[in-house]
Amino acid sequence: MIVSTSDEWRQTHVESWQRENKEEVFIYSCIEEVPLEVRKETDVLITFGNDLTKENIHDFESLKWIQLLSAGLEDLPFHELRKKKLLITNARGVHCRSMKEYVIGAMLHFEKHFHRFLQLKENRVWERETLVGELVDRKVLVFGTGTIGCEIGEAAQFFGMRIDGVNTKGSVKEPFERVYTMAEGLERLEEYDYVLSVLPYTPSTKNIFSDEVLGRLHSEAVFMNLGRGGVVDEESLAVHLKEKKIKGAVLDVFVEEPLPRDHAFWGLPNLLLTPHMSAKSDHYMTRCMEILLENYRNFTRNESHRMRNLVDLAKYY
Amino acid sequence: MIVSTSDEWRQTHVESWQRENKEEVFIYSCIEEVPLEVRKETDVLITFGNDLTKENIHDFESLKWIQLLSAGLEDLPFHELRKKKLLITNARGVHCRSMKEYVIGAMLHFEKHFHRFLQLKENRVWERETLVGELVDRKVLVFGTGTIGCEIGEAAQFFGMRIDGVNTKGSVKEPFERVYTMAEGLERLEEYDYVLSVLPYTPSTKNIFSDEVLGRLHSEAVFMNLGRGGVVDEESLAVHLKEKKIKGAVLDVFVEEPLPRDHAFWGLPNLLLTPHMSAKSDHYMTRCMEILLENYRNFTRNESHRMRNLVDLAKYY
Repeated sequence: MIVSTSDEWRQTHVESWQRENKEEVFIYSCIEEVPLEVRKETDVLITFGNDLTKENIHDFESLKWIQLLSAGLEDLPFHELRKKKLLITNARGVHCRSMKEYVIGAMLHFEKHFHRFLQLKENRVWERETLVGELVDRKVLVFGTGTIGCEIGEAAQFFGMRIDGVNTKGSVKEPFERVYTMAEGLERLEEYDYVLSVLPYTPSTKNIFSDEVLGRLHSEAVFMNLGRGGVVDEESLAVHLKEKKIKGAVLDVFVEEPLPRDHAFWGLPNLLLTPHMSAKSDHYMTRCMEILLENYRNFTRNESHRMRNLVDLAKYY
Repeated sequence: MIVSTSDEWRQTHVESWQRENKEEVFIYSCIEEVPLEVRKETDVLITFGNDLTKENIHDFESLKWIQLLSAGLEDLPFHELRKKKLLITNARGVHCRSMKEYVIGAMLHFEKHFHRFLQLKENRVWERETLVGELVDRKVLVFGTGTIGCEIGEAAQFFGMRIDGVNTKGSVKEPFERVYTMAEGLERLEEYDYVLSVLPYTPSTKNIFSDEVLGRLHSEAVFMNLGRGGVVDEESLAVHLKEKKIKGAVLDVFVEEPLPRDHAFWGLPNLLLTPHMSAKSDHYMTRCMEILLENYRNFTRNESHRMRNLVDLAKYY
């Protein structure tokens, strides 16, 4: 039995599934809605992943494969999944286009002063003395040189930005001019106009943007986090923004989501804050469907080694 | 004598002039500040152009060459300039990079709902049900396939947009998929998600985006004008925006600039309004200096045919 605990399927997605497959997908709005007898017979589970717990995973006695609709894995009950020796595939790659657009859009939002112009409009003020900026020649450091980081890098390069990257081993990677190790990258923040993290949350990325590290950003720098909230000391970042020690920030991910109503971030004017949306768009599920259909073909042919985006649970990504 | 009626020269620009030339540039903040005896002896005038009138041009008895710091010519006293048989060069090409960035930034501002997210932040609301859009596969029609239009087209293409163009004769031009004549283009507006004008203001572009033509835009379309205000029926556009007949507009140019305080545009929430700034940035004068220096070399060598961006006064551009 194939079960989806996300109901983001549109009619076109259901139709594209039905064109290829006879077996039906039973679609629920959340995991709590799935009756126990259905859980027991589910062999394929399609989910964003954050609904799986170390308790409810045991109800899925016949489970063989989980297709995640997200790329991040930090919410998964790793210990239990490892014991069950399940096939896990994720939606890696689906996020690239949307995140690339989001990053360039957010950078241009700052360079072109759109926020300021919206406020000037409110006050019916025509002011053209303050010159806006350009992306060309700006320096950007991207933490995370995977598919997403590289795609962002290429777009930045298209606009004439100078792009360096950071990965675990500092291994050279196109399109980055230079690639640093994590320690080297964190040392050099003061050289960059944009510092951007698309890092996953793992034991080795936890809180790496500490108060001390953030203190290295120059006063015109913009800090951007699109990976996971836990890599940043949020309290310190809020102070940096409030005291205008940096030009601004773009944050799409947070330690606690939804962001609590009393969080300091809400009140900061120099912050572009989005609710974990940088990867999502009206194209998202359509791209997930492509992965799901391809993986299901290989799953039914017992060719699981050909499945796209197989997750290595030992590595956390 | 060389006179500039713009004082946007920074120290680096003065230095780059002095490195190449012995003759000094006399810099004034506006044409009114230039004493009559200086006007009489000026043979090279550097100006944004909008300060020249059919009256004051006669004070410049020895004038041979005007280097414009803008690309638009509609403010120039054509009749007088033609009679004087002056060399006129403009800043064509200097605007491309900044305008390309502005256009992509403004499109992404709409696609990524940044304006909505800024308002949600004000109200401390975390809302991730509404899906944002992407540039990919959106259709854009660019009126004006000169240097600026082409550069914008290339950037749109980079993001996977489908781009068509419009020029006087409908002549094929890279990177546009199809190029229409003005009449054909205006007929087909309903096919496009973004309709963008970078047209100059000439007798044949006056008011071409009339009420009837604007009525062809579909309800999710965004209208963008970065060329000259006079090509649009502003009153009708304001009604279209107010009644939400289109998704939004991006306007950088207006019939009357500065935009009068009582103009309907100021009060429209679905409008991104900027004060004729799309081409300007902190890189602008640096790029103008490159043209000025090259043109001055050729001017002093009596090789005026080699000067960049020579304006044909008969054609208005």
